[in-house]
Amino acid sequence: MFVMPKFHHPDFEKLGLLNAPDAAFAPAEQDGVAPEYFHSTSMYPEYFKVGGQWRLAEESRMDACVVIEGDSLAVIEARNLKKGDLVILGRTEKGEEGIYLHSKGFVEEKQEALEDEFVFRQGRSRETSYARDYDKLFELLKYEKEHGNIIWVMGPAFAFDEDARRAMQLLIDNGYAHGVLAGNALATHDLEGALLHTALGQDIYTQKSQPNGHYNHLDVCNKVRKSGSIAQFVKDYRLDDGIMCSCVKNNIPFVLAGSIRDDGPLPEVIGDVYEAASEMRKLVKKATTVICMATMLHTIATGNMTPSFRVMEDGTVRPIYLYTVDIDEFVVNKLLDRGSLSATTVVTNVQDFITLVAKGLKLM
Amino acid sequence: MFVMPKFHHPDFEKLGLLNAPDAAFAPAEQDGVAPEYFHSTSMYPEYFKVGGQWRLAEESRMDACVVIEGDSLAVIEARNLKKGDLVILGRTEKGEEGIYLHSKGFVEEKQEALEDEFVFRQGRSRETSYARDYDKLFELLKYEKEHGNIIWVMGPAFAFDEDARRAMQLLIDNGYAHGVLAGNALATHDLEGALLHTALGQDIYTQKSQPNGHYNHLDVCNKVRKSGSIAQFVKDYRLDDGIMCSCVKNNIPFVLAGSIRDDGPLPEVIGDVYEAASEMRKLVKKATTVICMATMLHTIATGNMTPSFRVMEDGTVRPIYLYTVDIDEFVVNKLLDRGSLSATTVVTNVQDFITLVAKGLKLM
Amino acid sequence: MFVMPKFHHPDFEKLGLLNAPDAAFAPAEQDGVAPEYFHSTSMYPEYFKVGGQWRLAEESRMDACVVIEGDSLAVIEARNLKKGDLVILGRTEKGEEGIYLHSKGFVEEKQEALEDEFVFRQGRSRETSYARDYDKLFELLKYEKEHGNIIWVMGPAFAFDEDARRAMQLLIDNGYAHGVLAGNALATHDLEGALLHTALGQDIYTQKSQPNGHYNHLDVCNKVRKSGSIAQFVKDYRLDDGIMCSCVKNNIPFVLAGSIRDDGPLPEVIGDVYEAASEMRKLVKKATTVICMATMLHTIATGNMTPSFRVMEDGTVRPIYLYTVDIDEFVVNKLLDRGSLSATTVVTNVQDFITLVAKGLKLM
Amino acid sequence: MFVMPKFHHPDFEKLGLLNAPDAAFAPAEQDGVAPEYFHSTSMYPEYFKVGGQWRLAEESRMDACVVIEGDSLAVIEARNLKKGDLVILGRTEKGEEGIYLHSKGFVEEKQEALEDEFVFRQGRSRETSYARDYDKLFELLKYEKEHGNIIWVMGPAFAFDEDARRAMQLLIDNGYAHGVLAGNALATHDLEGALLHTALGQDIYTQKSQPNGHYNHLDVCNKVRKSGSIAQFVKDYRLDDGIMCSCVKNNIPFVLAGSIRDDGPLPEVIGDVYEAASEMRKLVKKATTVICMATMLHTIATGNMTPSFRVMEDGTVRPIYLYTVDIDEFVVNKLLDRGSLSATTVVTNVQDFITLVAKGLKLM
Repeated sequence: MFVMPKFHHPDFEKLGLLNAPDAAFAPAEQDGVAPEYFHSTSMYPEYFKVGGQWRLAEESRMDACVVIEGDSLAVIEARNLKKGDLVILGRTEKGEEGIYLHSKGFVEEKQEALEDEFVFRQGRSRETSYARDYDKLFELLKYEKEHGNIIWVMGPAFAFDEDARRAMQLLIDNGYAHGVLAGNALATHDLEGALLHTALGQDIYTQKSQPNGHYNHLDVCNKVRKSGSIAQFVKDYRLDDGIMCSCVKNNIPFVLAGSIRDDGPLPEVIGDVYEAASEMRKLVKKATTVICMATMLHTIATGNMTPSFRVMEDGTVRPIYLYTVDIDEFVVNKLLDRGSLSATTVVTNVQDFITLVAKGLKLM
Repeated sequence: MFVMPKFHHPDFEKLGLLNAPDAAFAPAEQDGVAPEYFHSTSMYPEYFKVGGQWRLAEESRMDACVVIEGDSLAVIEARNLKKGDLVILGRTEKGEEGIYLHSKGFVEEKQEALEDEFVFRQGRSRETSYARDYDKLFELLKYEKEHGNIIWVMGPAFAFDEDARRAMQLLIDNGYAHGVLAGNALATHDLEGALLHTALGQDIYTQKSQPNGHYNHLDVCNKVRKSGSIAQFVKDYRLDDGIMCSCVKNNIPFVLAGSIRDDGPLPEVIGDVYEAASEMRKLVKKATTVICMATMLHTIATGNMTPSFRVMEDGTVRPIYLYTVDIDEFVVNKLLDRGSLSATTVVTNVQDFITLVAKGLKLM
Repeated sequence: MFVMPKFHHPDFEKLGLLNAPDAAFAPAEQDGVAPEYFHSTSMYPEYFKVGGQWRLAEESRMDACVVIEGDSLAVIEARNLKKGDLVILGRTEKGEEGIYLHSKGFVEEKQEALEDEFVFRQGRSRETSYARDYDKLFELLKYEKEHGNIIWVMGPAFAFDEDARRAMQLLIDNGYAHGVLAGNALATHDLEGALLHTALGQDIYTQKSQPNGHYNHLDVCNKVRKSGSIAQFVKDYRLDDGIMCSCVKNNIPFVLAGSIRDDGPLPEVIGDVYEAASEMRKLVKKATTVICMATMLHTIATGNMTPSFRVMEDGTVRPIYLYTVDIDEFVVNKLLDRGSLSATTVVTNVQDFITLVAKGLKLM
Repeated sequence: MFVMPKFHHPDFEKLGLLNAPDAAFAPAEQDGVAPEYFHSTSMYPEYFKVGGQWRLAEESRMDACVVIEGDSLAVIEARNLKKGDLVILGRTEKGEEGIYLHSKGFVEEKQEALEDEFVFRQGRSRETSYARDYDKLFELLKYEKEHGNIIWVMGPAFAFDEDARRAMQLLIDNGYAHGVLAGNALATHDLEGALLHTALGQDIYTQKSQPNGHYNHLDVCNKVRKSGSIAQFVKDYRLDDGIMCSCVKNNIPFVLAGSIRDDGPLPEVIGDVYEAASEMRKLVKKATTVICMATMLHTIATGNMTPSFRVMEDGTVRPIYLYTVDIDEFVVNKLLDRGSLSATTVVTNVQDFITLVAKGLKLM
């Protein structure tokens, strides 16, 4: 069964940091430009000494600025800074400049000792043993269904296989999804599956390609645009299977980010990528588990905006679990430089991954 | 030496298509939505019978609508249709509905016979012999430098290697580039190389990573944003090497398309991907050779907007040569379904590819 | 449910081949060297006109010679020819030289018509829909368990994952395996799992690496060599789990072929690769289904010695089903040039593949 | 210019190891089986205290036993042990058991300090900057041509490209090769190129596939077998281009190891893989630079038998430089766990790699 790791705030007294200097700061001189020597965040919890007190930046992400807003600290992408925002300065992380990065908040002392004894395999590849990772994921998902918030991130081809598409639908229908991040292609392929049982004109079970089948794809784009929204399209054509239908039916929020290769796009797709990123981060700010499948672009984007921790409403701090699943070692290794506790990579075909997850949860 | 293939318009009399029906059309009923049974273009030359006459859609691309504009035919993405646009209908390609797709306009009859005798290898992989492809590319580039228009498309990591970056710079400086398509990351990495001789904080020659080196990347983003433009940044910091500097110095137009994973972005980056796609297509409309390197996203986007032919100002029709270079067979195979004459894929590390191209042209 | 395709011998009368010439032949002039213009076999059924009669070479394989032995035809690798063997000559396949290749023996006429209507996707990749392939495989395995002969071919890392190793063991224990082909590494890793619950020193479930863990691997090699055989080692150490144990327990024959990278090797490993290949072919000659997982070397070797058909004891002819499963498109595409009816490729991590197979058969 | 790193033997006095115990040893009780608790070698220099003296095992390799032979120490694969051989025992490496592993013999103290300041990128991928690695390789090869011994290891497809094949030939003809390790396929493909200008029936420049072209491959196997040796075949058919011809012409020794997928095999191919491995190691024992290209099997096999150092005839100790070049990160990462000084991996298509090497040495 899943056991939530306990978080320990740093003991600033023990660290000898009670008299550390306050963090320096300077106002942004123009919109979207940070002052020189700005501090940039990591995915770990970071504390800043402000007004003589060490404060945690609660809603963090990678590579962003920290802005002092009265008593609290906001973590803001440089492009979203406003002129006059008070931006924290400093590039050391052990208190020298009033900034403390706390990478081991969830690690028990006993555990550390244990880890010294055994060396864990670093790289992960097709030859890694994933049996335990699957088992832990099943337990995690059962826990998060009741107590957490699970975001699924999907690449364009995720809906090409009937089993995978049904597995994902069952996960959504059974409460294992609280948000979906994807692009125009994923949604279009999935809706083509719902309307015509094909993806890019090829049957998603028999693999038969229909003559002129690429029109299936283009027609679905066009019909959804005519309906005016995905929800209306689902209604107009009385669709009831697949990922997008399940999102609509279960009121699961989704963000579809645009890209330069899009056909259509579907009405909900956000063409401005920075606005799309902001909408994605809104969902990610609630997430406690994030699972990225078969997309380098969305995985990197989402990974960078997902910190390793979440401050819950009652003030407790818990880990965010991040999974990256891809058939290509190169892709999963791109995201490897994260805290080992909360990031897990799996090298496999995502179709088999999601089917095994649905079977592991007894949904299939 | 490069020899331009001759184009033959279809002989509609010989094809028995003089009495083919006119192509049907219907007005778009709302902006961005095509009428039912709309025709969608391919990358080949397509002729439409309008007002009793067969006309070529001159500026084509894949997966777009054909709109009758007086005597001429415009090829317009569905999202860019305006209410009332007269959109051609029909989904056959041999004249039955007044639409004729002409896939062999550049093939000589003798050649066809020859090809029957020998079978050309279909798939391309790391084990394909590329010696002749390189030789032909060298000759093509020499020709295009004087008579054509060469567009280079680059993935985010293209500027990580000093040799590759210098090779690309030499190609631009020596007239082998008429346009560059890329994203925010490529431009940022390249400018970091120009300012600090690193990419993501790692020296692009010695491979040494500087402590806190990721700030190099973030600082470059921030400084360019402060300067207000890439050209101004180049001036402010007196930079003179790399890809972006060469573009600025030689007035080579570039389009930088935004993505959800961007840091910064740099001022020139177009955040709205559909606007970015339109700007990309403006450059592509002039292109006679397009070379895509190390980017699945930009390669697919560019490939889809690049037809297999170009109508020159004097009315002659010539091929557009499209190259896709990537280390991953999966990526290059994505673009394989094109006319064999004009599309070439190469499976290798793009750093070595571009260095060999610069050496083949005696620039290095 | 699985339905066995019917085989149709060629109708030589209808083909106008009743009066085709007898196939020419010539004696091998020295051991291991074929006469000039020797005929080389394919994986399809091939008929040779000998003594005025069309005869099928019953036990075929790719790239071998056909030797006339009285009334029957033996298919023999060139290296195994003996001086004086009567080797069939000829390199055409439509009867001109008394040789007829019959590639569509299992295709019904109705089926051919159907296939003309729909185009099947050619290349297979991570984005192919495999749902139906899995379903068909489950039915096939149930049939073959009772009526056929299933050979499993495994790469060196197949035993690294506890789930995969257990899945394979359950398949063997439950009658779904009639032979195993592998190398020294697979057997060593699997026996290390049985003795120490590690592979190369890393726990196959927890992923923990023991200090000095590589000695686990070397010690297992050494201990098995000391025991004198795998069966004796299993007995000496009272082992009872994993792939090799199951083979021993259930008397499933296995062939372990040596390679230049071997540690050890284990006593059963055959160091002479041509002798190993001959032993492999002995098992393959009984096979009706062959499943190759995660090994380019063994997959190519086995694939080349596996024809597309099997002549059963009662004289009926049936297909041999060949599966290639690998995470790398490049590997599965190497074996693609086979009859579409009997060869199936799946692009995924073999650990997930075998777990899904065991679950699909209700073994897990 | 290449500068040879200086080697420093360990200062056992400074290390406090003058009074370390002698290393234990025990006789092998049967051929090919090591005694319990045998010591296994690494690729680093290792010293053993025997008869009160620290001695270096001079001709080492990975994963082998150390046998006391009078005053010297032989490093012998377990399978080659003879009953009665005195095998060193012990599994610690800091002197506790009379065994000392010396991993930093080539590192200057100044250098170590430097390395602390900068972090070198660990993983290597398609996105690594290889410019400096190429430059260093060019200088190394020029040095080794005069003073060292360069072994080239090639995968089966290395001879498919005319440029690559010519580049390799030029390297051999110009003194940059002292030995070649490969398999049956590489030699056959290369000789097919020499005889028919094809590889597997496809022209190695124009890429045209001849009808029935696979007979080119089989005929070459058969003709060489008839000639009786590669040298005789080269003479019989007056061949003069390609890799094998150059080896024959320049008396460069080669070892061709057999595998289960071989056609033929050619007469020189060694069918017993353990005998082949012994022959390979004979060449490797003279090597000072080893370059492995496009073969996982031969790379791992060769890598394991290549130590990180060589004791020269005059008693000086120098590094062996090992390169692994492959298009697949997975393959090059397999060999990554070696001393950083002497092992270099490059991720690219080997055809381009070898062409760039020949151009870098001004041979093309």
